[in-house]
Amino acid sequence: MKLLRCENGDVSFWGVLENSGSTVRPISGRFAEWAPALTRSLDMETLVFSGEAVPLERIRLLPPIERTSKVVVAGANYMKHLTDFGLERPKQPFAFLKSYGALIGANDPIQYPPLTHELDHEVELVAVVGADRVDPQCPMAAVLGFTVGNDVSARDLQRSGPAGIGMDLFSAKSLDQTTGVGPWIVTRDEFPTELPDLRLTLRVNGEIRQDSFTSRMIWSVPELLHFINARCRFECGDILFTGTPERTGEGHISYLNPGDVVEAEIEGIGKIRNVVNG
Amino acid sequence: MKLLRCENGDVSFWGVLENSGSTVRPISGRFAEWAPALTRSLDMETLVFSGEAVPLERIRLLPPIERTSKVVVAGANYMKHLTDFGLERPKQPFAFLKSYGALIGANDPIQYPPLTHELDHEVELVAVVGADRVDPQCPMAAVLGFTVGNDVSARDLQRSGPAGIGMDLFSAKSLDQTTGVGPWIVTRDEFPTELPDLRLTLRVNGEIRQDSFTSRMIWSVPELLHFINARCRFECGDILFTGTPERTGEGHISYLNPGDVVEAEIEGIGKIRNVVNG
Repeated sequence: MKLLRCENGDVSFWGVLENSGSTVRPISGRFAEWAPALTRSLDMETLVFSGEAVPLERIRLLPPIERTSKVVVAGANYMKHLTDFGLERPKQPFAFLKSYGALIGANDPIQYPPLTHELDHEVELVAVVGADRVDPQCPMAAVLGFTVGNDVSARDLQRSGPAGIGMDLFSAKSLDQTTGVGPWIVTRDEFPTELPDLRLTLRVNGEIRQDSFTSRMIWSVPELLHFINARCRFECGDILFTGTPERTGEGHISYLNPGDVVEAEIEGIGKIRNVVNG
Repeated sequence: MKLLRCENGDVSFWGVLENSGSTVRPISGRFAEWAPALTRSLDMETLVFSGEAVPLERIRLLPPIERTSKVVVAGANYMKHLTDFGLERPKQPFAFLKSYGALIGANDPIQYPPLTHELDHEVELVAVVGADRVDPQCPMAAVLGFTVGNDVSARDLQRSGPAGIGMDLFSAKSLDQTTGVGPWIVTRDEFPTELPDLRLTLRVNGEIRQDSFTSRMIWSVPELLHFINARCRFECGDILFTGTPERTGEGHISYLNPGDVVEAEIEGIGKIRNVVNG
C-alpha cells in the first residue's frame, strides 16, 4: 500500500495510490486517527475512504508527514560517508532534530538558501512512525512504512558552529524548504523482509552522485528507533531519517547550483525530483 | 496581560489571568487564530472570550506553547556560562531544536531520565512568537511576550556526541518531560522597555544556584530572532529559549537529584516550580 499526502486546490488530504498508480483514493480523517490501527494491521480495511478518486497528475504531492510531527535525523550512519568527512566510527548513534518547515514534497522546488555557497544532497531512507508509542522490545512494529528523503545540507553553515560545541546542524539542515520527502509512504508489508536491503541513488542532472545500499548502515532502523525513543519518545506521525551514504558533494567538491535537477530514489519505494530554485 | 494555557479536567484552553491573578478567563479559538492580531495590537479587545472565568487554583498550567510549534534554543549566550564549560566567545549565535515532548508546565514534575547521572538546570528567558512572520527589520514586533524556561540538560549525554561532530544536544536537551515552561506569557507591553534588564534566578531546594540579568546576554533577543529566522522562518506559536547564565551544576558539580525542588524565576514574569521525580 502506498500512502500519499496530497494537495488539490486548497484542500490537503491523505490517500492511497490505486489503479496501477494513476489515481489517489482519499482517506477520511487525520493521520493520527487512522495510522495507529493501520500500523498494527497493515490492513486497508481499517481505513475509511471519502469522496471520489483523484487522478495522480492533478494533485501536488506534499511531504508524507503531518505538521504536528517531529522530524528526527540520525547522522553519521554510513561508514564511507564518515570517511569523506574525516570522521571515525562513533561509539553510538547520533541524532538531531530538523524543522518541519524544511520539508518539501516530491516534486517541489528546493529553495536555494541565500546564506550558503555549499548546498549539498543526502539521499536517505526515512521511516515513518504510525503507532502511538514505540515498544523498545519490538521497534519495527511501530513503523507504518518507509519513504525517500533528501536531507539537503549547507556545508559551510554546518562548519560554522562554535569551537567546543560542534557542528551547527540547525543552520545546515533546517533551512526553509530544502528537504525533499516522498513521494509516498510504502507500508512495511510491501517489503520481502523486515529489514530489506534497498539500493539508494542520488542523481544530479541525470548523473549518479550517490549509490549505495541500506544494508551498509552502521546502525539498523530498529537500533536507531530504540536509541532515539529511549531519549525522546516517538509519537504517531514522527519520522526518522536514517543517514546518508558516501559521495555527497562535501567529499567530492561538487555542490548543488540553481537549476540543478536532483533526483533521490530508493528501490521499492520511489523517486523524488526536486529542482534547485534560486 | 498574562496569557495562560490551561487544563481543566480533560479540556485544555488558553486564557487571560484576571482578578489580581485569582481567575482565568478562557479565550475562544486556537492560538494561531488570535495571536497574530494580539501580537500587533497588544489590545485585549482583539480577543473573543468564551465561558465562565475559572479559579486559577482549579487548573493545571500547561506549557504556554501549542503542540504544533517549534522550540528553538539559543545556546552559548552568556559569557560566564561559556567560561564554566571552558568555551570561548563564539563568533555568531548558535541554536538547536528541542522536542515539544520535552516541555512540561509550571508545576509539573521533571521526569528524571533513566539514561543520565548528571541532570542539570538552566534558567532562561523565553520569547514567544505570536506573529505569522518575523520582519527582519523589526523582529521584536513578532514577539507576543515572554515566559520562563528551565532548559534541563543531561550533561553526560551532552558530552557523548561523536568526535568531530560535537555535543549530543538532542540526547541532552530533548529528554521527555524535563523542560519547565511557564507559568504564563507576559505580553511585551508590560515591560518598561523593548529589552528590559530582568533578573533571572534558579533555586534548588530554596538555595540560589543561578542569579544573573538578561542584559548579560551576548546576543540580544532581536539579534537571536534575526539570526534564526534567516535560516528557518519563525511561525506563530514558535518559542525561543535565549540561553542560560553561569552557575549551572556543570561548572560547579552539583547536579539535580530525585526529590529536588527546582524553581526558575524571572523578574516581571513569574516563577515555575518543578519537583524532580525519579
